[in-house]
Amino acid sequence: MLLPVRAGKVPAGSDTLFAAFEHVIDDWVERCPGDSFQYYHVGSAAVPEMEEWERFCSDANRGLLAGAINLMTVPPLEVQRRLADFPYVVISLKREDMQHNSPDIEFDMAEMFRKQLELLISKGCRNIAVLLNDNMSIAKNLAILNIAEQCPVNCPRRWIQGMNLTHTRTLFYDNLLELMFSRDQEHVPDGLVVQNENFLPAVLNALGRLGIIPGEQVKIVSHGNLPVVRPQTAGVDYTYFRIDRVLAEAIGLLKRWKAGLLHDRRIDLLIPPSNDVTYR
Amino acid sequence: MLLPVRAGKVPAGSDTLFAAFEHVIDDWVERCPGDSFQYYHVGSAAVPEMEEWERFCSDANRGLLAGAINLMTVPPLEVQRRLADFPYVVISLKREDMQHNSPDIEFDMAEMFRKQLELLISKGCRNIAVLLNDNMSIAKNLAILNIAEQCPVNCPRRWIQGMNLTHTRTLFYDNLLELMFSRDQEHVPDGLVVQNENFLPAVLNALGRLGIIPGEQVKIVSHGNLPVVRPQTAGVDYTYFRIDRVLAEAIGLLKRWKAGLLHDRRIDLLIPPSNDVTYR
Repeated sequence: MLLPVRAGKVPAGSDTLFAAFEHVIDDWVERCPGDSFQYYHVGSAAVPEMEEWERFCSDANRGLLAGAINLMTVPPLEVQRRLADFPYVVISLKREDMQHNSPDIEFDMAEMFRKQLELLISKGCRNIAVLLNDNMSIAKNLAILNIAEQCPVNCPRRWIQGMNLTHTRTLFYDNLLELMFSRDQEHVPDGLVVQNENFLPAVLNALGRLGIIPGEQVKIVSHGNLPVVRPQTAGVDYTYFRIDRVLAEAIGLLKRWKAGLLHDRRIDLLIPPSNDVTYR
Repeated sequence: MLLPVRAGKVPAGSDTLFAAFEHVIDDWVERCPGDSFQYYHVGSAAVPEMEEWERFCSDANRGLLAGAINLMTVPPLEVQRRLADFPYVVISLKREDMQHNSPDIEFDMAEMFRKQLELLISKGCRNIAVLLNDNMSIAKNLAILNIAEQCPVNCPRRWIQGMNLTHTRTLFYDNLLELMFSRDQEHVPDGLVVQNENFLPAVLNALGRLGIIPGEQVKIVSHGNLPVVRPQTAGVDYTYFRIDRVLAEAIGLLKRWKAGLLHDRRIDLLIPPSNDVTYR
């Protein structure tokens, strides 16, 4: 019996990671009918739903749960204290900002970026612009800037810009892309990395307004999760993370914890990107 | 007896509005020793401190408070229901995003922007860039874009960009300014509006790295609150909001509510910018 805690901040369908995770859990249950999963919609780290955390703690303390998977959230410190030796893992984008004394599974965004650059270069791009999630950790951002700096084509810092889902309005997406793709420059980007696929609709809309055709004047590569749960965008290439592997690693870590094999709980596990699109 | 509720999210000193507000409250108490103020550190609208709201409700219901001033926050809906006919006002930046049935005092950011553009134009600027708070309301942003479009000098949309204090890392401030001020353009901005003075240190640092001297190659105008509670930046002009007027308006509205003179509670009061720097 294994039961994940899931952040409930993002409404179903609005972020592909949550939908893909639900999908691989359904697959897991089909293969291992003895295992069951319980969802807790605990909100985000910034805005926790305390009543739901309370329900989770109560279930954990009554022995109803074998362990917990925290998807893009971290138990509030008060909950962490109450969990004591209860096994849990965190699937996050930035351990450095999210304090917890448990295994942490992160996506290797730097390696993904390297692959995305390689893909664009192999398609002939020589002037590459990048739109990153601006709330990623500083460490990841610095690693990405470093890869950009060392790449054999033109990928200057002024073409590496931050966007975010929570604050930035479409207004500013438009203006930012108009500035990045201004023809009033010696070079104009012919390749674009859109790190978060959730930005794609706004980015494609802005490019359309500027008369720039994705896949023609500019090659675009973005990030996706496997299994693919949302129709993919024409004119865009994707680099994927396999979410079934994330679930398998999380469950493996919980089992090792329960078996007393996790001497140091502060394990950092990096999930590499995969372009194995034959999955499913 | 008048007691304001104050959002406690921003640490003292990190935002000049909170510090200026505390200052004008001290002045008020000096002039009107019969009035006293009680602070409640209730967090932000997104992350409310429910225990502090509880303390506030309890004090309000026991008749200890004459009214409340919500500074950059709004009572959670549950608290609003419990307040019933208790007089309160909200000082906000975006009524449209913050639901409440009480008078709302907003800063006239569009009028401030118009004054800032005029100031830059009067100093000879012909190519003006703008850094806005990207979590302002859409209505305010559209009003500002409209003013920019109609102004007699060059202030294109691609030079109007969003920044925010909560998410964007210094990394992206740097890259954004490098792109905006790239010499690889037909025109380079010679004027810059920095809407939020809290961005100034990062902006000036980035300009310095680019070899652009504020006040010389680029004239900068920013926003400030009166009284000035933080040393001002050399090479920067300021457009001010008088916070003593904000407090006086808030108290006036509470008195009218208590006197039964507020038939419609959904009053929207706009505070105009002031350049009367002789205050204090």
